[in-house]
Amino acid sequence: MQTEIDRCRTLVQTCFDGVLSSQGQSPVELGMRYALNGGKRLRALLVVESAALHGIDPKQSVWSAAAIEAMHAYSLVHDDLPCMDDDDLRRGQPTVHKKWDEATAVLVGDALQTLSFELLSRVEAAPSSQIRIDLISSLARASGARGMVLGQAQDIAAETAETPLDLNEITELQANKTGALIEWSAAAGAVLGKADPLPLTQYARALGLAFQIHDDVLDVIGDADKTGKAVGKDRDAGKATFVSLLGLEAAQKRAEDLVNEACEAISPYGNRAETLRDIARFVISRET
Amino acid sequence: MQTEIDRCRTLVQTCFDGVLSSQGQSPVELGMRYALNGGKRLRALLVVESAALHGIDPKQSVWSAAAIEAMHAYSLVHDDLPCMDDDDLRRGQPTVHKKWDEATAVLVGDALQTLSFELLSRVEAAPSSQIRIDLISSLARASGARGMVLGQAQDIAAETAETPLDLNEITELQANKTGALIEWSAAAGAVLGKADPLPLTQYARALGLAFQIHDDVLDVIGDADKTGKAVGKDRDAGKATFVSLLGLEAAQKRAEDLVNEACEAISPYGNRAETLRDIARFVISRET
Repeated sequence: MQTEIDRCRTLVQTCFDGVLSSQGQSPVELGMRYALNGGKRLRALLVVESAALHGIDPKQSVWSAAAIEAMHAYSLVHDDLPCMDDDDLRRGQPTVHKKWDEATAVLVGDALQTLSFELLSRVEAAPSSQIRIDLISSLARASGARGMVLGQAQDIAAETAETPLDLNEITELQANKTGALIEWSAAAGAVLGKADPLPLTQYARALGLAFQIHDDVLDVIGDADKTGKAVGKDRDAGKATFVSLLGLEAAQKRAEDLVNEACEAISPYGNRAETLRDIARFVISRET
Repeated sequence: MQTEIDRCRTLVQTCFDGVLSSQGQSPVELGMRYALNGGKRLRALLVVESAALHGIDPKQSVWSAAAIEAMHAYSLVHDDLPCMDDDDLRRGQPTVHKKWDEATAVLVGDALQTLSFELLSRVEAAPSSQIRIDLISSLARASGARGMVLGQAQDIAAETAETPLDLNEITELQANKTGALIEWSAAAGAVLGKADPLPLTQYARALGLAFQIHDDVLDVIGDADKTGKAVGKDRDAGKATFVSLLGLEAAQKRAEDLVNEACEAISPYGNRAETLRDIARFVISRET
């Protein structure tokens, strides 16, 4: 799978370089490039691999892949703000408001969201304007006040709530906060290929939850040097997590079950979906 | 013109009510509705009137009108944040971060931007998906890191700059910060009607600058009770404005010349564009 990851990373970076390189030396554009750097590119990989299953060339799907990475990057820049999660480190580097300032970080996030929709509106993203509209419409729903933003608001509300969240509530929160974009990424391949998105959506739903459970596991057993961010933060904040609710061992078991579920969901694709299964297994074995 | 303003206001509000009413009682959705309330609806009016010139029913153009008002509202919510302009009042009411908190205001702005693109992706906005893509693509360019966000960044940079901006710099700043969305609004009618947008673009460019000059005039001679915001703020901050650079009388004269220019630009539409000319004259006579 490393080959696919590397290829995807290069493709996405080349796409961003092309889009953002011309002149633009304003703090906002510098901050955008900075915020788009690095990361696992998991969402991009899901787009490119699910698209490949439907015969879509990575040179085309990279535009949707870059769009979802821009959307993800915007959410991280804003989540890190002092008034939100107040994080100083992201991917082992100072967060945007630390390297520049809060105003720049707000604007960098704003412009990254705009960039995401701009990328999807380009003819390179799909020759059919109807497909581009489908991608834009579904991404808007996944990322807005009933999707990712709702999840972030639920997360903030949980911090000051009198009782910690229960398992249902935390599952819903995570489905919104991180699940919605992961689902969009996997479904994008089917949208690009005008195919039924259901198997990929089911795959992504299980994968997204496994991803988040593993994040909580890493918060407990992870290595700050590897994750590039502070560990034990959730536990110290007394926040309910999958680990605090289920216990470490049961949480890890649950993540494994979900990965098996995800692999099963894409059985209609047979062996051709092996890379997507590798991604699912990677999600719960990663150290960062 | 009051009839057109009232009709437009009702149409836009009905559109927002329909889109945002179902359930949604989260602080973010409450904050979105709050932020979308009131205002002059100038941008919406430009969309609806420029569309009417091309035979587009207001029931259709209201979707683009609502989209630009959502984009405008997002920019105000974020501009008012403590790390940006730090304003407590907007349209005579507490700003979103005052009524709720900063985190909610960041998320409300974020979700309003998403809503803007979501509205344009709907089939109600235009039966042709290519036209919807054209609207989305042009709005992304107008509002992103080379448009509105750049203008906001330039505005912030000006506050800490050693020398005040000169007339060229402030004109460029305003063309980005407020001009780009005003231009999009007027051009939207031509895009919806598949017509040449040039006359409307020229109209809007002159109008947008006149609008901003009049804003600076109001900052000096305006009435806080009527404008619903603090006056004299720019002057007290030692910020360069059109009034500080040109003098009050010359600034007012320049705004009038620009309004005449705007009215002239849409002469190809003859008498049918009289409402757009009324809007232009209103822009420099308004007290709020």
